[in-house]
Amino acid sequence: MPQQLNAASGDFERRFLDLLAAKREVSEDVDAAVRAILADVKQRGDAAVVDYTNKFDRVSVSGIDALRVSSAEVDAAEKACDAEVLKHLDLAASRIRAFHEKQKPSDLDYTDDAGVELGMWWKPVEAAGLYVPGGTAAYPSSVLMNAIPASVAGVDRVVMVVPAPDGVLNPLVLAAAKRAGVTEIFKIGGAQAVGALAYGTQAIKPVDKIVGPGNAFVAAAKRQVFGTVGIDSIAGPSEILVVADGNNDPDWIAADLLSQAEHDTSAQSILITDDADFAAAVTQAVDRHLATLPRAGIAATSWAEHGAVILVPSIEGAIGIIDRIAAEHLELAVDKPRALAAKIRNAGAIFLGRHTPEAIGDYVAGPNHVLPTARSARFSSGLGVIDFMKRTTFVGCSPESLAKIGPAAIGLAAAEGLDAHGRSVAIRLNRG
Amino acid sequence: MPQQLNAASGDFERRFLDLLAAKREVSEDVDAAVRAILADVKQRGDAAVVDYTNKFDRVSVSGIDALRVSSAEVDAAEKACDAEVLKHLDLAASRIRAFHEKQKPSDLDYTDDAGVELGMWWKPVEAAGLYVPGGTAAYPSSVLMNAIPASVAGVDRVVMVVPAPDGVLNPLVLAAAKRAGVTEIFKIGGAQAVGALAYGTQAIKPVDKIVGPGNAFVAAAKRQVFGTVGIDSIAGPSEILVVADGNNDPDWIAADLLSQAEHDTSAQSILITDDADFAAAVTQAVDRHLATLPRAGIAATSWAEHGAVILVPSIEGAIGIIDRIAAEHLELAVDKPRALAAKIRNAGAIFLGRHTPEAIGDYVAGPNHVLPTARSARFSSGLGVIDFMKRTTFVGCSPESLAKIGPAAIGLAAAEGLDAHGRSVAIRLNRG
Repeated sequence: MPQQLNAASGDFERRFLDLLAAKREVSEDVDAAVRAILADVKQRGDAAVVDYTNKFDRVSVSGIDALRVSSAEVDAAEKACDAEVLKHLDLAASRIRAFHEKQKPSDLDYTDDAGVELGMWWKPVEAAGLYVPGGTAAYPSSVLMNAIPASVAGVDRVVMVVPAPDGVLNPLVLAAAKRAGVTEIFKIGGAQAVGALAYGTQAIKPVDKIVGPGNAFVAAAKRQVFGTVGIDSIAGPSEILVVADGNNDPDWIAADLLSQAEHDTSAQSILITDDADFAAAVTQAVDRHLATLPRAGIAATSWAEHGAVILVPSIEGAIGIIDRIAAEHLELAVDKPRALAAKIRNAGAIFLGRHTPEAIGDYVAGPNHVLPTARSARFSSGLGVIDFMKRTTFVGCSPESLAKIGPAAIGLAAAEGLDAHGRSVAIRLNRG
Repeated sequence: MPQQLNAASGDFERRFLDLLAAKREVSEDVDAAVRAILADVKQRGDAAVVDYTNKFDRVSVSGIDALRVSSAEVDAAEKACDAEVLKHLDLAASRIRAFHEKQKPSDLDYTDDAGVELGMWWKPVEAAGLYVPGGTAAYPSSVLMNAIPASVAGVDRVVMVVPAPDGVLNPLVLAAAKRAGVTEIFKIGGAQAVGALAYGTQAIKPVDKIVGPGNAFVAAAKRQVFGTVGIDSIAGPSEILVVADGNNDPDWIAADLLSQAEHDTSAQSILITDDADFAAAVTQAVDRHLATLPRAGIAATSWAEHGAVILVPSIEGAIGIIDRIAAEHLELAVDKPRALAAKIRNAGAIFLGRHTPEAIGDYVAGPNHVLPTARSARFSSGLGVIDFMKRTTFVGCSPESLAKIGPAAIGLAAAEGLDAHGRSVAIRLNRG
């Protein structure tokens, strides 16, 4: 049974704060182990990567070449995939690409009234590394979601690393990589793979940015190489907030709540509704679904331990609560979802109306499914094309425009006590 | 005497790698001390902030109210400023605001061929915190550069913290805050100020994002509160790369190199030129300038220890070197700077042509002077309006459009073993 909160009751604020503050993850301290692996990879390069891979992935390869995935291997993997699933993957890839193409930012380039040329150029990073977890967490949809934005941004090299424990690799992951514009693939994982991407080895040229989910070792390694390379945010357990009035089918809403809960026992599913009877009906529907779901054990634990049902006097009045939750995924199962969405400030992704289950966004809608967790939608965004680009601003002065704005720079430099700053301007105005 | 490198010589690659890898900063390990301060501020709130402020800033106030800067105090500070300098500050603020207004991103909202509503809304963060160093490093220009983008983004609360050691505060910093749209000011600093912004206290409501430069304690505190709030990048020592052919006045270029060198002994100034005689003339000009500059001690140390002159066979051929340096500030003192700039991938900000000294960008040009250091221009950007905003993507399906794309989601969910995902779609297609 999930927590039941009532926004109209006296203890709501205290209980809501507890819900927001609840830790859902046990953080493992693997910093020292990761530091040693990274230092070794930095020093010994491929040899270290091969040693750690043999040890942690229980393989026995003699060199890095055996860990490089050839295009023939990719093609063979693709042939091993179900043809129908490949068609679905094609649809997903093309829809994700189409949406991300529309995200491409525009440069800025103009001359202002003072005659100063001003602007900003967007350029892709040269190389990106994509970490893909191995084993059961190897999701082809995540390959598409992480690699396609890099490809659309125009990144030259998209290097995928994916561990193949015991030599086993999900062929759909390779088929997804082919569709997503990945240019190099290595069967390596863990901190050693992150180190290879960040520092480079003899066989793997360093990248500029590393993205993708991973276990505690991968997360710690990404934190430690940050600065040498850029990284994406460190993802926490998944979350959904469903806002639903009483005019919904409880079975549908229950399925949506469970689609997050089945990810992980630390996932969180929250329902906000203004209808107590509907809330009860959803809770019962959850139990009915659980009876037939393969991942019922995980989903039931997540729902019981982290789930919540919040009863509110009105949906409109719940906007403050919605913004404070700042959910990764927000479903608005109401009549006028756009009007409600317009009033909401914080959410990773919004799913509008009764016919837009969150899962459609996990696979084929088009927007990215890599989204801010743990309330970070207050200040951060889902993965996008601009995460693989950077901006360079520019200024160009003529002697005339410098004469117009230069004196203010000289005056401010003097006020800040930075005389060489002032002199570099003054000397060009013949006031040096 | 700075290092002299010649791109045509056999030892260039080795020496260039050494130059790129050279550490210019001594990192202080203050993590434990900062952790204790943050925990105390989180627990005791204002009382802890007051205690640390009395101790570290050598003041003796009895409560947080004495540390809040009233608008009357701001007005009085403004009156104490030189009228001419205020005019310069006005020009700077209006030019910075004008440039950043043009950075405001556009939303995306469309319906695709399948009938799916898709898009992305940009929203400002609700509250931003701006850290401003006290004492001699309190630069009014930095207040403008950090606060104006937040103001343009539409952030509701822009909270500035600035320590006033011994009760002393630079009045120009308050005058800049007034022009930059700062909404609250507290005379607090160090890790305690960062903690107050991140966790909130009785008097200071928490913010969502913290930006601005600071000492080792401030940098460590920002790293530790990251996740609770967003932060900007941790700035390293400043750098300039000047690319100049022989048709420049050596005195001008020398002044530009010194305008970075005077910041800090760990700043770095590099000249790339294709003219050995010009290189020698610049080196001599640097020495002449140093004889008359107030901050000659700092500038001379920076130039001798971290400066470099790189002789290249041709400017065009130096693009690879320029990109590998990925300088914070890049001056292109050549005839056709735009043609050269178009080929460059990595730079924080570019200054075009012989009449655009970098210092013009520090104060009045318009683009931001908070820029990526230490080669991070390979993957990150200067501060901008979007750093105070976040994107929420959205999807809206009708029964018809869900019927078109839903089956692929069901198929992929099945391939990934996530049955509740598939069910949440199938149930709406009457296939549940």
